Amino acid sequence: MPTLCRPAVAVPEHVITREETLDLARATHAEHPQLPLALRLIENTGVRTRHIVQPIEETLRHPGFTRRNAVYEAEAKARVPAVVSRALANADLDRREIDLIVYVSCTGFMMPSLTAWLINTMGFRPETRQLPIAQLGCAAGGAAVNRAHDFVCAYPGSNVLIVSCEFCSLLYQPTDLGVGSLLSNGLFGDAVSCAVVRGEGGTGVRLERNGSHLVPDTESWISYAVRETGFHFLLDKRVPGTMSMLAPALLTLAGEHGWDASELDFYIVHAGGPRILDDLCRFLEVEPAMFRYSRATLTERGNIASSVVFDALDRLFEDGGVEDGARGLIAGFGPGITAESALGRWTTGGPARGDARRARAEVPTPTDGAVSATGAGRTPAGAGVGVDS
Amino acid sequence: MPTLCRPAVAVPEHVITREETLDLARATHAEHPQLPLALRLIENTGVRTRHIVQPIEETLRHPGFTRRNAVYEAEAKARVPAVVSRALANADLDRREIDLIVYVSCTGFMMPSLTAWLINTMGFRPETRQLPIAQLGCAAGGAAVNRAHDFVCAYPGSNVLIVSCEFCSLLYQPTDLGVGSLLSNGLFGDAVSCAVVRGEGGTGVRLERNGSHLVPDTESWISYAVRETGFHFLLDKRVPGTMSMLAPALLTLAGEHGWDASELDFYIVHAGGPRILDDLCRFLEVEPAMFRYSRATLTERGNIASSVVFDALDRLFEDGGVEDGARGLIAGFGPGITAESALGRWTTGGPARGDARRARAEVPTPTDGAVSATGAGRTPAGAGVGVDS
Repeated sequence: MPTLCRPAVAVPEHVITREETLDLARATHAEHPQLPLALRLIENTGVRTRHIVQPIEETLRHPGFTRRNAVYEAEAKARVPAVVSRALANADLDRREIDLIVYVSCTGFMMPSLTAWLINTMGFRPETRQLPIAQLGCAAGGAAVNRAHDFVCAYPGSNVLIVSCEFCSLLYQPTDLGVGSLLSNGLFGDAVSCAVVRGEGGTGVRLERNGSHLVPDTESWISYAVRETGFHFLLDKRVPGTMSMLAPALLTLAGEHGWDASELDFYIVHAGGPRILDDLCRFLEVEPAMFRYSRATLTERGNIASSVVFDALDRLFEDGGVEDGARGLIAGFGPGITAESALGRWTTGGPARGDARRARAEVPTPTDGAVSATGAGRTPAGAGVGVDS
Repeated sequence: MPTLCRPAVAVPEHVITREETLDLARATHAEHPQLPLALRLIENTGVRTRHIVQPIEETLRHPGFTRRNAVYEAEAKARVPAVVSRALANADLDRREIDLIVYVSCTGFMMPSLTAWLINTMGFRPETRQLPIAQLGCAAGGAAVNRAHDFVCAYPGSNVLIVSCEFCSLLYQPTDLGVGSLLSNGLFGDAVSCAVVRGEGGTGVRLERNGSHLVPDTESWISYAVRETGFHFLLDKRVPGTMSMLAPALLTLAGEHGWDASELDFYIVHAGGPRILDDLCRFLEVEPAMFRYSRATLTERGNIASSVVFDALDRLFEDGGVEDGARGLIAGFGPGITAESALGRWTTGGPARGDARRARAEVPTPTDGAVSATGAGRTPAGAGVGVDS
């Protein structure tokens, strides 16, 4: 039973407030014909503070893609290990018990990915699988949870470490002057977050079903232009309205699981901007308070890309969690336009750790070397197996 | 029973021969103090022809990273769909029966990845999961097979499409003058390859176990420097010797499965260069003829990165396959240094397609919404469950 344990989250020490952001926009773009619109959009985000890996003066200088990406690598190596250690501690696991590392980050590019460095420097086993994902953007938080869930279904008793490293401030492009870019400059923040999906035991969200949904013909709505100056984030003005297209997919996924997405006990969703949360309230007919963790993340840290869902989930833990068996939704939204959604129940423990170990040793295994058809039980929508809960 | 079906492979229409490569190296680097060494290394690769997406004159011009990446995107969109269609036909599946697309490519960067475009333009279901992997380099062919295997273990009866799109010629960097770069300029080729892992039925390699292995502290041996001019491929001169470190991992993986890696019936491995194949013969004590498919790929197409394993596997199919139940190894090697290896048995069919459908509809599913602990049965080395075959 894959359980998403309490995340560990860290934000950098450099803080920029909404007022500072607005002042900077006014000073930098004084002659911009759409400055008033951009300022209004930034104010409407509700973002109060953001944390960034460099002081704002350095952030606003573009030192070239070579240097930018080197900063990404250096900052990732400086900041990720401590968060990994805390996530492992939250899950009561040693690094040698991790079987897969899913690394999601869309704000810098390394090959090999940071997974190789983490395995080498932090003492993970050389056999640890590496799954680096760079191209799912803000949806990658949900995707990481879902691929971890799948892996534990394939290998019952295994454990997956998720690492999300997002330094959105390193994507600042001073020459991008569209309103979408000006808004993005006031919306995104930096964070590192990690979480473990335990195969047995653990307190958190017991993952039961996941699904992906691509809104047809919206590939260009959130995208990168790849240039000499690095990744240029392009945000279409239609993006804030996408929940009208994604909310039905959430309702469908929950329905396939025998649940009503309007009547869940907790919601941990990507807070790309305020309208996403407002619209989800409307389309799912859910009280705004149900999205308070995602909104708090947006307010205090900005849109921290794939880390939003982990930061929001951490706040639910901080709040004491919910009652055992409470049902909830985790969803990442990002380029595609893609939603990566998970359904699960809150669990406070299950068998204790030692018990889980013993139970695991007794797991029956097929004897013919073939994969059992009575496997994980969850099937993708197209696989022809009916609803089973 | 996940079965890796016959791949479809396509190489571009522009061909460059070994003689042309050597002539170009002589003309371009006439004053290079290590030219004789570079020429010798290129000759030793055994590569006779390579296929590239643009005429050689254009390939040698660096038009800037913006333009390079735009060429990548345009060529991918022009060349991938036909190969996808052939791979689906090889597996006797319709696109709407695909549950996950694994897209591996390290020679261009798009966000969203090509998966979104493929789903939109080729009529895959909007619920199709997307798994784009850009950071595993040449190991990504093996990784794609292995993550597809895992997915089918998690969702018995599901089907996974693998797409490998490698335009290595778009990484040519005229300012990189190290011997490793000169060698790479004569080694790599372009290709698109696709293959389906069917959840039920199908002819090909029935996947039974997979594993990953990272050689400690070799992260810098194969890597990208990310610069204004794009990705710069860095190849350490110690790389050709890595089989001494990876062969033991292959023996261990096979041993955990109750197999002897020296006595398998077929070997489909990444042919990064000739010494990889020579050393594997030596360390695994296997006849050179056992690597003939990988060597043919290297000779006729060069190192086509993550596509090598699919091209080599296609040659095994072309050769008539092997007898039912024959045991084999598939392995990708790449940055990390990472090996992604799979063990499987050749199967010519299993139940016919209609039979598989009916069998699938009868798969028992858990009734409590929980994931069954009697799942896929294969466990990562650290998960504490013994060998089961």
